[in-house]
Amino acid sequence: MRVSELFTKTRKDAPADEPSKNAQLLIKAGFIHKEMAGVYVFMPLGLRVLDNIKQIVREEMNAVGGQEVQMTVLQPKDIFEKTDRWDDKKVDNWFKTKLINGSELGMGLTHEEPMVDMLADYVSSYKDLPILVYQIQNKFRNELRAQAGLLRGREFVMKDMYSFAKTQAEHEEIYEKVAAAYHRVYDRLGIGDITYRTYADGGIFTPRFSDEFQMLSPIGEDTIYVDIDKKIAVNKEVINDKRLEQTDVDKTKLQEERAIEVGNIFPLESKYTDTLGVYYIDEAGNRQSIIGGCYGIGVSRLVGALAEHFSDEQGLVWPEAVAPAKVYLVRLGEDGEVVKVADSLYEELQKAGVEVLYDDRKEASAGEKFADADLLGIPHRLVVSQKTLEKGKIEHKKRDKKDISLLDKSDILKTLA
Amino acid sequence: MRVSELFTKTRKDAPADEPSKNAQLLIKAGFIHKEMAGVYVFMPLGLRVLDNIKQIVREEMNAVGGQEVQMTVLQPKDIFEKTDRWDDKKVDNWFKTKLINGSELGMGLTHEEPMVDMLADYVSSYKDLPILVYQIQNKFRNELRAQAGLLRGREFVMKDMYSFAKTQAEHEEIYEKVAAAYHRVYDRLGIGDITYRTYADGGIFTPRFSDEFQMLSPIGEDTIYVDIDKKIAVNKEVINDKRLEQTDVDKTKLQEERAIEVGNIFPLESKYTDTLGVYYIDEAGNRQSIIGGCYGIGVSRLVGALAEHFSDEQGLVWPEAVAPAKVYLVRLGEDGEVVKVADSLYEELQKAGVEVLYDDRKEASAGEKFADADLLGIPHRLVVSQKTLEKGKIEHKKRDKKDISLLDKSDILKTLA
Repeated sequence: MRVSELFTKTRKDAPADEPSKNAQLLIKAGFIHKEMAGVYVFMPLGLRVLDNIKQIVREEMNAVGGQEVQMTVLQPKDIFEKTDRWDDKKVDNWFKTKLINGSELGMGLTHEEPMVDMLADYVSSYKDLPILVYQIQNKFRNELRAQAGLLRGREFVMKDMYSFAKTQAEHEEIYEKVAAAYHRVYDRLGIGDITYRTYADGGIFTPRFSDEFQMLSPIGEDTIYVDIDKKIAVNKEVINDKRLEQTDVDKTKLQEERAIEVGNIFPLESKYTDTLGVYYIDEAGNRQSIIGGCYGIGVSRLVGALAEHFSDEQGLVWPEAVAPAKVYLVRLGEDGEVVKVADSLYEELQKAGVEVLYDDRKEASAGEKFADADLLGIPHRLVVSQKTLEKGKIEHKKRDKKDISLLDKSDILKTLA
Repeated sequence: MRVSELFTKTRKDAPADEPSKNAQLLIKAGFIHKEMAGVYVFMPLGLRVLDNIKQIVREEMNAVGGQEVQMTVLQPKDIFEKTDRWDDKKVDNWFKTKLINGSELGMGLTHEEPMVDMLADYVSSYKDLPILVYQIQNKFRNELRAQAGLLRGREFVMKDMYSFAKTQAEHEEIYEKVAAAYHRVYDRLGIGDITYRTYADGGIFTPRFSDEFQMLSPIGEDTIYVDIDKKIAVNKEVINDKRLEQTDVDKTKLQEERAIEVGNIFPLESKYTDTLGVYYIDEAGNRQSIIGGCYGIGVSRLVGALAEHFSDEQGLVWPEAVAPAKVYLVRLGEDGEVVKVADSLYEELQKAGVEVLYDDRKEASAGEKFADADLLGIPHRLVVSQKTLEKGKIEHKKRDKKDISLLDKSDILKTLA
């Protein structure tokens, strides 16, 4: 895309009403727009980052047998009353709305109930299980405060997957398979080395742990204790001798860290399936409980978490896997030869399938173009100018490195395509 | 995908509480699940159809310079009060909700106000215009009745695009460019021949017409008058002598038809931009009004409209462009050679980039497999059985044709890949 045609612009100052670093950066770079606290529009470049993360998550969920669906935002009251999650005193962050006839509806903040209810149409026999279903969808949480940018949204994008198994053993096999897929997601996002599977409280339905995936960050809301050797961690909420004994960590080696929760997986036992009356008939003809699991990844939260982590004084520094473009091509000056070479490089890179942001603006100075390239955080910067052409070369710099090199055009195409 | 692994199943009977043909068919085929009236879950195969339509719409909007964003569902009250579209007496199909502090919010049913409000951050000069921005997103309409399946949803997927131009002439150029893109969308969906650009009322802000795109259908809610020669139509609501004079139609040749509105485009004049105080400065330094347009396509409605149109007694008959798979591969029997040939055909087609639904179920009869192939509406059916292998062939039938032919495997790969 040509920067002269992109309707968003960078801005020098963060908006005064935005306290979080991630949203400040993303707004300055034109990736998001603040609609209200905790509610953000994804602008063209921000949407590309979001879509890139979605696609990585989707590929890894498909790879473990997840089948994608699209559940609804509007939720009927009755199924949540059955599981006692309707009352505002029980679940205090529902957004609710009403049909014209006055019937109350919920706005999806989690989908265990509708997922299990839907499953009743498709599951009756042991032959129908196990099942792994997921969606990537807008969710809503009526947060009292929302000051952490994309890290705590009132409206946000989430991948939520649900598993249904015949036995506890089958459940555990799926659960571990999904945990491994989560690690692959974080590896591909470039945060594998700082993201720890973390023992956390399993909630009121189960004596088991749930597992969080915590990304180390000084601004994280969670405190975790990391066993660096074993590459696992424990959430502060379960730090006590009795519970530590149930874990694999070496409690003499734990190191306190702040972290952002970038995923969580929960054993649901048969809480939702039993309560909503969804069972299966086993080979012997007996009715059996279905063992559930649920698996969340905050996709828009990851945009914020990556922005916090992959940034410096000059702006964002996206990893290639999620960057809105691979190359930021700067054209300096309007000299005929410069325009010709830059235009043709733009065409050739695009033809080779390389996403390019082509800064062809006439009115912007060299300084402004370089500053924007840095602020936007595109991994590779190429510069075409009279100076580089005199040497028969094109200038190349990586966003995360200091060195600038002069390369032949053919080498650039070879390296980047 | 292997049918034995797909968690959805076809069902013989439509649910008793579903009056519409499109939803009945789509539920029987396992493409959608009814959450409540007007609110449907997209199951794996239905989601593929929805995504295929989205992608066609996206490509055509990008081709005319549309830039994709993702606006929010949650909407602040103040901007809608400014345009007098907040009051339930003025707009009677809002879903509304509340923050914990009691502030009222709307749930997006259209995005003129937030789009214009957002634009204020990016537009100030004539150099910033024109702009064409769109999104593909869940929308909400609090319909009193919702009995038309995907044709009238309370929650539905829509593509809405907005244009902002410096002058009326520039606006009209964009408007016609988008109208042409709409025709390309309907052509690609296979309904180009029955979809008419239709003069309709422009609403209270403009004496101009708006333009609907109406797909002929006996179950359509609209009545239109078609000028077959000129390939344009007029909505019944503007059928009067004075308004007909302003159109291109030959009023002696009009033919009454029922139709489903599958798109609409509106001139907005400078109603929203003026009201929300967003202007531009022209080359002479004067403040000028910005001329807007808005352009909707009901993406989930199109799933329903296509299901109504492309179906017969046996079920759905998807056009290739939107079908959830190109091939339904039926394996009859568990004979070693049959399994081997069918498995390898499945692998080879997938390797060639052909989406295949592979009916490898052991417990289903030949009749059940053929019935499902028809109900699901996959364009090409291939059958591998001992009978076909004895002849060294594979059976091929198109969903929309009666003839069955026996083909060599190499011909199949050549034809379908």
